[in-house]
Amino acid sequence: MKALPPGSVIGILGGGQLGRMLSLAASRLGLDTHIYSPENISPAKDISRYATTASYEDIGTLQDFAGKCDVVTYEFENVPATTAAAVAAVGELRPGALALEIAQDRLSEKTFIQNKAGVAVAPFEKVDSVFDLRRAVRKLGLPAVLKTRRFGYDGKGQAIIRSEDDIDQAWSKMKEQPAILEGFVPFRREVSIVGARSADGEFTALPLIENVHKDHILHTSTCPTNGDNGAARDMSAKIMERLGYIGVMATEFFEMENGDLIVNEIAPRVHNSGHFSQNAGCCDQFEQHIRAVAGWPLGNMQPKHSVVMTNLIGAEVKTWLKLATLPNTHVHLYGKSKIRSGRKMGHVNTVGKPV
Amino acid sequence: MKALPPGSVIGILGGGQLGRMLSLAASRLGLDTHIYSPENISPAKDISRYATTASYEDIGTLQDFAGKCDVVTYEFENVPATTAAAVAAVGELRPGALALEIAQDRLSEKTFIQNKAGVAVAPFEKVDSVFDLRRAVRKLGLPAVLKTRRFGYDGKGQAIIRSEDDIDQAWSKMKEQPAILEGFVPFRREVSIVGARSADGEFTALPLIENVHKDHILHTSTCPTNGDNGAARDMSAKIMERLGYIGVMATEFFEMENGDLIVNEIAPRVHNSGHFSQNAGCCDQFEQHIRAVAGWPLGNMQPKHSVVMTNLIGAEVKTWLKLATLPNTHVHLYGKSKIRSGRKMGHVNTVGKPV
Repeated sequence: MKALPPGSVIGILGGGQLGRMLSLAASRLGLDTHIYSPENISPAKDISRYATTASYEDIGTLQDFAGKCDVVTYEFENVPATTAAAVAAVGELRPGALALEIAQDRLSEKTFIQNKAGVAVAPFEKVDSVFDLRRAVRKLGLPAVLKTRRFGYDGKGQAIIRSEDDIDQAWSKMKEQPAILEGFVPFRREVSIVGARSADGEFTALPLIENVHKDHILHTSTCPTNGDNGAARDMSAKIMERLGYIGVMATEFFEMENGDLIVNEIAPRVHNSGHFSQNAGCCDQFEQHIRAVAGWPLGNMQPKHSVVMTNLIGAEVKTWLKLATLPNTHVHLYGKSKIRSGRKMGHVNTVGKPV
Repeated sequence: MKALPPGSVIGILGGGQLGRMLSLAASRLGLDTHIYSPENISPAKDISRYATTASYEDIGTLQDFAGKCDVVTYEFENVPATTAAAVAAVGELRPGALALEIAQDRLSEKTFIQNKAGVAVAPFEKVDSVFDLRRAVRKLGLPAVLKTRRFGYDGKGQAIIRSEDDIDQAWSKMKEQPAILEGFVPFRREVSIVGARSADGEFTALPLIENVHKDHILHTSTCPTNGDNGAARDMSAKIMERLGYIGVMATEFFEMENGDLIVNEIAPRVHNSGHFSQNAGCCDQFEQHIRAVAGWPLGNMQPKHSVVMTNLIGAEVKTWLKLATLPNTHVHLYGKSKIRSGRKMGHVNTVGKPV
């Protein structure tokens, strides 16, 4: 696929804030977007040129949509496999279905990263029953974390097991879903790499980002940190290369006490920890993703100054007016009308010293 | 008017690239936009939540539109007076009708700036006939520039008079329209101030911008320049204060050989010479205009590094792919499908050293 010229149409599966920010970035480049999602009104649809409202199971409408787009991408990793296949049968899906398949299942994800990319992950065991769980606990030791294999995010579908007494309750929390037990990894901090890979295999990334979570939801991301990102960057590049990835992907790491890194998980999409790049003076992750899927050359992701991103969760959005008065703070709001506890309503990027 | 909360609707008269970039800025802040213009498809409508397609003379539709918006602004200075009045009768128009009235007529503009704001302009004379023109030439001397009082832009509706022999031809070029003769001002460069004024009278501005024109169309804007912007800034602030201005306004100056500044013209809107601010690491002119008209506090307009903006005129847009490969260059395209000679298709901001 040649670089898509201005006026081309980028299809986006999903209509949330990531789709909205992708759409804004595409608009800056003179590219049109077409949002596909089941909601009639959504943050991304509100500001995109084209919109289709239909279910992800509606194969006919999906193929009609894909036929109208020059390339199709997605803003969430839980795009059903059948949805991805329907789009790929008619058009170009970037990143491809493999990234979705791997990222949607923690077992496939860890197996792929460890065995195919040769990159370290936390020790893990497959758990399909409470008997599996007991055996896995004996093997990995305690504490350990039980997680559903699919559809877990922001701490949902997880249970920490500290003693053998916790096993039954932890398993019942999984509600019979296939799960995975992960050995507890003592880490000093959580970091991520937001990298981009082009159709030609070119790779670039934002510097190492340090992430702090609150109640399992990302609270702040700071960049650049003092950490050397060489190792994390190489690991991320390796995984993306093995996935044949096109677009922006986040790799989340635990940094151990000794400085070693192990991969926690990957997100085959633009990522909350990369939002700081919007005000870092470089090509931001949204533009970079659009560039990659549109076949453009990748942009420069080297920030011009340090930035701290802070999420506005739930009612925190009510502080917008106060935040707007701060001289080095850039406010980003997603246009969501309903405030709900734990809902990401916006974020602010606070710019620091030149780097 | 209190600060408009996220989800409020900003109406914009006009659907061109300035409206598009205003709309993108509003979207970042969680504010919706409603574009009103006669064109069914336009750069701004494509990416705005709401759109009305009707003529600027359609008073009923205008008032219906204004009733649906929390505030209405405009992206071009030739909004008809009756259009502005229709909107103001129903809703809040920011900036107000006075700025339009003054900016639409070169005679009113120069008279206001000189007499009401006490700010220097080039010597000028009113010209309604060839007899007026001969008298004005005798008074101001030659060379001098004859301009239509209304609807001139990018060098249109202008004639340079170098000798008395040029007088008849210059007048015929005006096609019987009311005109103004301006004394020729020898200047060393053209500069501008893009300033913002809030409803509370707070004022801020981007640093002095140096502008180079090619074929009467803005070619490059460079900021920050080495020039002290104190005087220009004060002059711009004075004019905006006297206009009771709310929003972003550009003041274009000639800088004379001795460093003195005289005002060439004002543009009561975001301005091409301020586009560099999108990649200057500060609050850009589009966000600033939205903040001002929405009753938000003004943002910080102090750039973090130097930037040069270069317009892409007509077929120059075809260089987009080459430009996208440059490491410090940010490409902005307006989504216009038809390339026409002299048409502004996009611009690029090239980022330089920290300031």
